[in-house]
Amino acid sequence: MSTKVLMENKNVLVLGGAGFIGSYLCEELVKKGDNVICVDNFVSSDVENIRALLEYPNFEFVRHNITKHIDYADLPELKRFKVDIQGFQEIYNLACPTAPKDYLKFPVQTTTANSVGVIKSLELAKRNKAKFLLASSSAVYGNPPANSEPVPEEYVGMMDFLGPRACYNEGKRFAEMATAIYRDTAKVDAKIARIFSTYGPRMLQHSGRQVADFIRQSVAGEDVTIAGDKNLTMTFCYVKDIVDALINLMASDINRPVNLGSENPYTLTQVAEKIIKLTNSSAKINYTDQYAHSNQPTIPDISLAKNELNWFPLVDLDEGLQLAVDFYRATAVLHQTMEGQSYSDNEE
Amino acid sequence: MSTKVLMENKNVLVLGGAGFIGSYLCEELVKKGDNVICVDNFVSSDVENIRALLEYPNFEFVRHNITKHIDYADLPELKRFKVDIQGFQEIYNLACPTAPKDYLKFPVQTTTANSVGVIKSLELAKRNKAKFLLASSSAVYGNPPANSEPVPEEYVGMMDFLGPRACYNEGKRFAEMATAIYRDTAKVDAKIARIFSTYGPRMLQHSGRQVADFIRQSVAGEDVTIAGDKNLTMTFCYVKDIVDALINLMASDINRPVNLGSENPYTLTQVAEKIIKLTNSSAKINYTDQYAHSNQPTIPDISLAKNELNWFPLVDLDEGLQLAVDFYRATAVLHQTMEGQSYSDNEE
Repeated sequence: MSTKVLMENKNVLVLGGAGFIGSYLCEELVKKGDNVICVDNFVSSDVENIRALLEYPNFEFVRHNITKHIDYADLPELKRFKVDIQGFQEIYNLACPTAPKDYLKFPVQTTTANSVGVIKSLELAKRNKAKFLLASSSAVYGNPPANSEPVPEEYVGMMDFLGPRACYNEGKRFAEMATAIYRDTAKVDAKIARIFSTYGPRMLQHSGRQVADFIRQSVAGEDVTIAGDKNLTMTFCYVKDIVDALINLMASDINRPVNLGSENPYTLTQVAEKIIKLTNSSAKINYTDQYAHSNQPTIPDISLAKNELNWFPLVDLDEGLQLAVDFYRATAVLHQTMEGQSYSDNEE
Repeated sequence: MSTKVLMENKNVLVLGGAGFIGSYLCEELVKKGDNVICVDNFVSSDVENIRALLEYPNFEFVRHNITKHIDYADLPELKRFKVDIQGFQEIYNLACPTAPKDYLKFPVQTTTANSVGVIKSLELAKRNKAKFLLASSSAVYGNPPANSEPVPEEYVGMMDFLGPRACYNEGKRFAEMATAIYRDTAKVDAKIARIFSTYGPRMLQHSGRQVADFIRQSVAGEDVTIAGDKNLTMTFCYVKDIVDALINLMASDINRPVNLGSENPYTLTQVAEKIIKLTNSSAKINYTDQYAHSNQPTIPDISLAKNELNWFPLVDLDEGLQLAVDFYRATAVLHQTMEGQSYSDNEE
């Protein structure tokens, strides 16, 4: 790929690009031929997620905390993309701890990412006249409807805005509000993606989510533990489907929030049984109490995404779980090997 | 008052100190003998509110936008308070447009004041080991209970977090959440005052609130216009009562949100009739539609403030309205005189 081609491509900034969804998004954008500038500070992400991308000429990584000041035009590593002259055409903001164990560990960072970080990136979008996409969450809905109906984008539930998970749940509401304010008053072409429960290979190492725990336990031959109501249904969307939706949404002229997720509900027992079968495990299922202050899962109504983006999830749960299990097995072996080497190095 | 005395007093930072409530708070703190550093950028406040205070040696004004960086220790005007050595002992944050006409005009400033501004002031409190008080609002409750019962601090209503008033309503929820996060994780001795509808002399020039309009219309001999349901009840707390509550709360060891307001509901018709009587006006009352997207008023349950702060409002509505009317008459005459002079200057 020549420098000439790079200069003609879009400059796309992906904040939180080394995270779970962010890294898959960077991959797709790099494949599309965009110049991808990935920004991350590794609070809840992993350099392993983007290691393969570092070899592409149209990918560049900037280690930075988005709540702090930065002048991208000054960075020598971005010179080849002419960021100082042509700026950014698109900004994706996925920079926020998303797994409960991460945001409960980093509440201040989660609070500032959702406010200071979002506002700084909106200001950047305004100055660059760039399109902007906020990765929001089903968490903004608050408590789900009593009868577990799919929630449309208009639904607003009660929000415990001072509760233990408020840095994320309330933070995302604020992030959407700030995005809407810049859309309405500063003419930022802003998109709001309300992402529902998402899974995939790279969630496994750093998640603390139940599906990840099921795979780990099942592969290790341990009993699988389900926390909470065994009949509670959730939906699970494969990460590459979500990434396609984000790219579609950015290309669209939709400026309202859009639900993105799977419509097909499963009980956690069904998911655990699938994983036990896929891993040829003889693991049994145990049930324990729900994690304290867990969000009740909501089921998305994705009519808007279907009708306006012509998008719906393509990867079914068996297929996606198989990919996740295969990845976990491969990397678990890798980690064991490395630990083994490290141990034997110490012995020498 | 000697410099020695000033150095022994508390340094108290009042953000938004030139605003309606802020300026009365500064006055009380100056009278108490604190060294008061008042910060304001006059987005929705008025230098007239603090003009009389500028003559006090234990009062200093800093013109600054609290969402921007500042190093108070470097400011020469604060040298006499030894801010560089002894820092601040208390920080009151009242810096946010509060009247609907102000925050609807300045949505970005309202959004950033409630997030970037609040977080910067919490960081300052953390570094200074200062007590911190956030001026929050009854707006955080969202829609009131259907039966118009007084709301206790635990009440959480539906919040239209993307609606036209979200920069304020949702912004205040976020501001409370951020304050609670710093209280819980950074050990900031933080207080959250949920202030209900407040009135008083200085609200009149810059408000756009109904009581202010009633006084203006009634004094001018115009008909008084009530927007909305004539039977809707609201409560009105005199500003000096609120200021006493804020000072009590700061001195207390309460770190939960506390409702501050009047318990006595009046219909807008009753208030308009009182004002017409107080102004000896022959004005009639007209009714029009409610302002678009108005918050439904909530009535506070102030049991917590009564029991824990030993506080309750002392000034009754007739007394407070009389003070407001007197002030309006005096300043209206002043403004007319000044306008007259200015006009005749032009003619010469």
